[in-house]
Order: sequence, then structure tokens, then C-alpha cells
Amino acid sequence: MFRFATTVKLYDTDATGALFFAQQFRLAHDACEAFLATTGLFVQGKPILQLPVVHAEADYAAPLRWGDAVTVEVRPGRVGKSSFGLCYRLCKSDGTVAGTVATVHVAISGKTGRPVRLPSVLRKALTAAAARRA
Amino acid sequence: MFRFATTVKLYDTDATGALFFAQQFRLAHDACEAFLATTGLFVQGKPILQLPVVHAEADYAAPLRWGDAVTVEVRPGRVGKSSFGLCYRLCKSDGTVAGTVATVHVAISGKTGRPVRLPSVLRKALTAAAARRA
Amino acid sequence: MFRFATTVKLYDTDATGALFFAQQFRLAHDACEAFLATTGLFVQGKPILQLPVVHAEADYAAPLRWGDAVTVEVRPGRVGKSSFGLCYRLCKSDGTVAGTVATVHVAISGKTGRPVRLPSVLRKALTAAAARRA
Amino acid sequence: MFRFATTVKLYDTDATGALFFAQQFRLAHDACEAFLATTGLFVQGKPILQLPVVHAEADYAAPLRWGDAVTVEVRPGRVGKSSFGLCYRLCKSDGTVAGTVATVHVAISGKTGRPVRLPSVLRKALTAAAARRA
Repeated sequence: MFRFATTVKLYDTDATGALFFAQQFRLAHDACEAFLATTGLFVQGKPILQLPVVHAEADYAAPLRWGDAVTVEVRPGRVGKSSFGLCYRLCKSDGTVAGTVATVHVAISGKTGRPVRLPSVLRKALTAAAARRA
Repeated sequence: MFRFATTVKLYDTDATGALFFAQQFRLAHDACEAFLATTGLFVQGKPILQLPVVHAEADYAAPLRWGDAVTVEVRPGRVGKSSFGLCYRLCKSDGTVAGTVATVHVAISGKTGRPVRLPSVLRKALTAAAARRA
Repeated sequence: MFRFATTVKLYDTDATGALFFAQQFRLAHDACEAFLATTGLFVQGKPILQLPVVHAEADYAAPLRWGDAVTVEVRPGRVGKSSFGLCYRLCKSDGTVAGTVATVHVAISGKTGRPVRLPSVLRKALTAAAARRA
Repeated sequence: MFRFATTVKLYDTDATGALFFAQQFRLAHDACEAFLATTGLFVQGKPILQLPVVHAEADYAAPLRWGDAVTVEVRPGRVGKSSFGLCYRLCKSDGTVAGTVATVHVAISGKTGRPVRLPSVLRKALTAAAARRA
């Protein structure tokens, strides 16, 4: 499991006083970028491949407020030939799970735009993370 | 069915050249605000009640690019005692469905923060929209 | 003068109950895209040239709230050989000026990344808009 | 001087391949929240006072790209009776200054909405930061 620490910024909240729902995907995405950075897969500004999101979903269990410290736990989901899932849990400092996010990514060639096999470095990182979980 | 016309803005896209996935929720939310405005439910800045999102999901079928004209079709989903769903389809000008979004909202009191029955004006609007669909 | 009508969305606001300051640039940018679209300059997704912002500033006179109707007035600023300015005024429905924005853009070639002369179609639109103002 | 380390996220960029101009204010704001947190001024979710931005400006010297490591240097600007300025410099890892931001904040009472004297804890932090700079 990969852990990413962050805080809810003022711009993540809205006039209701809590997180605007779509910003939960921003928090998950920050954790995703940090997780992928650990795989050594990306060269800055020149991704070997693209990993567009083909499905995303989120559940909201407790409101997040401006300044809340959040730990995003990242776990691999299903790993396919050219796709993989990531599951995120947003935990407050008191352990409350404020919400969850899941994303499914497809690996496509930056040149052709067509699906490609997951690079082995990424597949290994996902498998290793899944093993640490078990 | 309620239709909302918009365009993909530069800030909706990212360095991969297409829509950043979380921005699809922004486009759906704009349509949601426009749909709710037709119900007469909200007084500007003083909502009678809050309608936080408790679940959100999106699928991505075709990339959206800067400047793309998009029609967001909004359909009611399941309507419960104090909750309701909305389903969105993002259609490009050539009819291609670029993606879909679904949100589930719970009506809560702005005062107590507890679930309340859907206001009849909202229930009627959702039912009417569902009937027009049939 | 070019006028663009919009409304403050929930995600434009923050937990203080008013517009998050950086979102004023979003509202101005929406007006900018709509203004530039009137010039016929852009082919969807294939800009003939890029117009990056090299300077941006904003003043905030009155708070904008969720649901506020806003008319963004766009006026050309200084027009140079390869640069131009745009000035925006955000007016509420009662005529109050909630804030102002100014941006300075440089025209650069999408191929070489170097400054180029403003296309005549853009120069004409800016001059025409400035004349209508006088 | 206060230093804040961050990276340019995918959603900070746009289809031109570089930072969307308004996102430079997001990077500066993250640094602002981190700086203010060091003053001990804010209680989570219950700010003693509000510090709305009344003026903001940015200059853009070099494009920032997805994944770029950025150090935001924060320096106090003019400190008044109920207002203060902050100046930010966004430096890339090679030392290049990619851009600058300046914001002016007014302290207002969360209750009355009227300007109040800067809290001494904030005034001291601003003065100390200015002294470290000299």
C-alpha cells in the first residue's frame, strides 16, 4: 500500500463549507501521480506512454473541510494486459474514512493512440503494491 | 430530458491534449446547476436545503478536445425519499457520446445537516423530466 | 465592447462563502474564449497560433456568491506588434462591478514557439472592438 | 523567506502543453496556506478571521510543464494596519524563475465582515519573514 499525505485546500471547498465533490478526484490524482513517480516510469514531460482514465468513481462518507489533513491510501485494483485499476481511501487524522475513489486506466501509445501492454516496470510496481497489501 | 450546451474550455484539457478526467464532472455539474435552476428550488445564495453528492461516477468513451461543442443530456435516475440520482450523457456535435456521468444526491437540511424529504417542487421536476423521457 | 453572460458556479466559491480569488480568472477566460471565437481565428483543436498569457492581474471589489449572474465586459487593451491586452469587468445584475481582470497575451508560433505578428483577423477584431468602445 | 516545494500536476497544464495561467495562482496559494500555517493563526475550519485577496497579479517568464519540480519562495510585501502583501517566486530545479505572483490580503472579521487590525501573531510572522530576507 502506498500512502500520500495532503491537506484540503481552500479551493477544494465550496460555499456549503465542505469539499466540492469533484475535488476528491484531485486529491486521488495527486496520490496517483506520487505513486506512479515511485515506479520510475515517467520521464518529466515526456511520458513513454499515456494512461488515460476510462472509468472513475467516488463515494463520500464524511465531509472534508478546509485544512483537514488527509492520508490517501492507494491500492492496486485489477491488473489487465493493457489496463489497471487503482483504489484510493481518504482517511482523516482521526482514522475516519472520508471517502473512496476508484479509477481504471488504459495504457496507450503516445504515438499511435492505441492500447499497448503495460510496461513491465509498472506491472511490477502494481504487483508489488498488491503483495504488500496481502 | 434536459439539454445543456457548453464547450470544452482550455482549462478543461491537460498536457495530453484531451479533457482531464475530473473535468467531466465539472461539465456535468454545470448541467446539474442549470437543470436545478429550472425547478425554481434555489434562492440565490440561500439554498433552502443542501444536495451533497454521495456517489459520483464517470465513463470515458472518446477524448474531448479544447473547443469541442458538447451537449450534456440530463436524465433523472432513481428518486427516493430523501435522495435522487442524475444521469448525464456528453454528446459531441456529430452525435458521438464522449462520456457519461452519474451522480447521487441526498437532500439535507441546511440547519441540522440531517436528511430531509425531497421538496415537492424538486420531486415534481424529476418526475416530469423522467416522464418526458418515456 | 464584447459582453459575456455567465453565473458563478458552486465550484467557483470556497468555504468562506464567496468566489475563490483565482476563479475570477476562470470567468474572465471563458469570456476571452468567447471573444476570440467571434474573430474566426481558431480552428477547433488546431490553433493557428498560441496566445499564452504573459501577465495577468485582478482586483476584487465586492464578493461574488454561488448563483450570481455575472456579465463580463471585454475590452481590448494595448495592441502591439505581437502582443495585445484584454480588460475585463465583472458586473453583477444590479450593475455593481464585482471585480476587474486584465491579461496580456503574446502571439507565438505553434511550430517554433517564437513570437509572430498578430494575425490581421485578430488585429482587426481588437481594433473594431476598441472603436465600438469609443 | 519561506520555501514551499511542489510539482506541476497534470491538471495544472492544458492542451498547449504548459501550465494554464490561472493555475500559477493555485501554486502560489498552496505556498500561502503553508506559510500561514507556520504562524499558528488558523484553527482548522474555524479561522479567527478571513484574509480575502483584494488584488492578485502574476507574470510568466518560462513555461512550466507536467512534472516540473517547483520551489515557491514566499516573501512578505507591504504590511499595513489591516492588510498585507505576499510576493511569490516560482523557481524550477535548475534555478530558472518560471514566474512570479503577488497577492494583497485584507483582514476582515468573520462576524462583521469589516476590516480589523492584523492579529499580532500574523504581523510578527510577516515582520520576522521580512527580517530574514534582509
